[in-house]
Amino acid sequence: MMKKRLFTPGPISVPEEVLLEMAKPIIHHRTPEFLEIAKQVVEDLKYFFQTKNDVFIIAGSGTAAMEAAVVNVLSPGEKALVISGGKFGERFVEILKAYQCNPIVIEPGWGNPVNIEEIEKLLQQNPDIKAVFATLVETSTGTSYDIEGIGKVVGKYPDRIFIVDAISGLGSVPCKTDQWNIDIVVSGSQKALSLPPGLSFISVSQKAWNIINTSSMPKYYLDLKKYKKSMEKFDFPFTMAVSLVSGLKKSLEKIKQDGIENLWNIHKKRAEAVRKAAIAMGLKIFSKSPSDAVTAIVLPEGIDGEKFCSDMRKQFGMSVAGGQDKLKGKVIRISHFGYQDEFDTIAVIAGIEIMLKKYGYKVELSSGVREAMNILFS
Amino acid sequence: MMKKRLFTPGPISVPEEVLLEMAKPIIHHRTPEFLEIAKQVVEDLKYFFQTKNDVFIIAGSGTAAMEAAVVNVLSPGEKALVISGGKFGERFVEILKAYQCNPIVIEPGWGNPVNIEEIEKLLQQNPDIKAVFATLVETSTGTSYDIEGIGKVVGKYPDRIFIVDAISGLGSVPCKTDQWNIDIVVSGSQKALSLPPGLSFISVSQKAWNIINTSSMPKYYLDLKKYKKSMEKFDFPFTMAVSLVSGLKKSLEKIKQDGIENLWNIHKKRAEAVRKAAIAMGLKIFSKSPSDAVTAIVLPEGIDGEKFCSDMRKQFGMSVAGGQDKLKGKVIRISHFGYQDEFDTIAVIAGIEIMLKKYGYKVELSSGVREAMNILFS
Repeated sequence: MMKKRLFTPGPISVPEEVLLEMAKPIIHHRTPEFLEIAKQVVEDLKYFFQTKNDVFIIAGSGTAAMEAAVVNVLSPGEKALVISGGKFGERFVEILKAYQCNPIVIEPGWGNPVNIEEIEKLLQQNPDIKAVFATLVETSTGTSYDIEGIGKVVGKYPDRIFIVDAISGLGSVPCKTDQWNIDIVVSGSQKALSLPPGLSFISVSQKAWNIINTSSMPKYYLDLKKYKKSMEKFDFPFTMAVSLVSGLKKSLEKIKQDGIENLWNIHKKRAEAVRKAAIAMGLKIFSKSPSDAVTAIVLPEGIDGEKFCSDMRKQFGMSVAGGQDKLKGKVIRISHFGYQDEFDTIAVIAGIEIMLKKYGYKVELSSGVREAMNILFS
Repeated sequence: MMKKRLFTPGPISVPEEVLLEMAKPIIHHRTPEFLEIAKQVVEDLKYFFQTKNDVFIIAGSGTAAMEAAVVNVLSPGEKALVISGGKFGERFVEILKAYQCNPIVIEPGWGNPVNIEEIEKLLQQNPDIKAVFATLVETSTGTSYDIEGIGKVVGKYPDRIFIVDAISGLGSVPCKTDQWNIDIVVSGSQKALSLPPGLSFISVSQKAWNIINTSSMPKYYLDLKKYKKSMEKFDFPFTMAVSLVSGLKKSLEKIKQDGIENLWNIHKKRAEAVRKAAIAMGLKIFSKSPSDAVTAIVLPEGIDGEKFCSDMRKQFGMSVAGGQDKLKGKVIRISHFGYQDEFDTIAVIAGIEIMLKKYGYKVELSSGVREAMNILFS
């Protein structure tokens, strides 16, 4: 028997009580019973998003909600500013290009923070930029961006909106949608909400609606106006993934009960523990602005990251993620969200230590674990 | 305690063993373990679709797969023929219009079969029609269409493809994708597969690929070329709804084991039982070409269908669907797919009899049940 532990940045492990909630008999999505669930879920999602704006649920992956943010806001040929610091920043650029939009791309370099002044300058130079796209936490590099700072800049313009991909970050790190002037926030179920993948979410401000009402981009399944109309009756325009929504209800209840600040703190401690442990082992953190949602650790020269991850899974039952694209084989990525506790954090650090030793890398066993224990239980 | 029974045309009840399969710990979607699941599921889906063509899984509702069929095949301004006999035929028209296509619409009238000669004539008159869209079973009316017959006509043209929305019908009634020249078949999880909603499916023939490769329609999440490329490694372009796919594996295994002909026969018996029972109660079947997937029964004059459904749910725990759009309040719709057996069929008929009596309609109790029993156990 090998116990399985998921430290991948989505999908993650789901609490047993949530799994069993979703295993309950199916409720039809157009019944008073489900309407009550939808009502509560949407209210609790607003708390999770820290917003008074509309929040909608889409049956689909996070990318579906990212696409919704593009196709509802822009029209073909229109200009958008994208901060692209990794694979998911690039995804916004790809979607914009697929829809014949004109993205101006700021590339701070993978793992680097973004220069807010550059954003300000580009907005001044290009009065036709309609929206600014950024990422709360770039999953491919484990980098956090100064969303609050960007929000201050974009918020000065009454006719330009700020769109944030918070798929990985939401719930793990602070994201104060209304306070930070974020008009559209996109997220997904398989991260800090500790749910299986299959649902995505999108919040929409009144400022965003004003622009959405002028968009001529073709859309149907992702047409947010349809969602808004149905949501007036706590209904959905298309058959909703009801079992996942039942799980969502349970997950949001727990978050609301504990308080979202508590969730942020838990992630902060776990992430700090992993970072300090990695440094104690003599390793480096890839990002210059590391997030508390995902940590990318640079492996020592000569160790094949793909094989390392495969061995972690085969020998220890632990799933950690490898690098993507230009980081393939070079880093391992550990998520701090999902159903895991302090002892799981210690377990994954111990697993990395033992595996590094097996690979012939000089590491004093427990050197990382010791650091982590001090942080986790301080 | 009130036992719940779902006879809605999706979502439906899910077998307990499938619910528990989905409640198992989450597997990451890019692991050898999940790759094996994906491999088997895709092979079994081909059996379910009766095809050797590609079959892809999309995380999303059936409408997402319908939209995929439109945006991958057509380019803006192009002409398509749509057979629209109800709410879901109309949906194809709406999607085509949303994407600036030019739909020629055949409207046989709700509940009426389609005239194949009319299709043939329109195809001859309009050499620029690129695709023909039809519905296997129109859920809003419980009507089956002669898909085999339409396939014979469209199959004569090497450059025109045949697209079928089989969301409600697939698995309930025969749909021989390859034998009937259907180039694209669309389906969903919450029908004859007895799964929760959240997954949709699409099969694509080589003839369809030839057209897809020329489409200039903007798309990203629903871009089938991305799915094809990923599926070469039994992977998905976007995070897959892994728990639903685990349920799908279980469901398809059972269907393959029993044989799909057996599944068709079960639906045929259930549907016939309900139709004959309704007639024995003095009621009428709405459709002139009734399907074995969903039955729409016309309620006696003066009975409010919405209230009737609500009372069935409140008093007997039975969810049957009301009418949609122009049939609102006039019919009740009963699905024959999902996790239900012969005794559930008897139960819903008994429930309708008792409710009709409560509403003051003259019905001899068990008159419908008797007919049903004779058919179900013959």
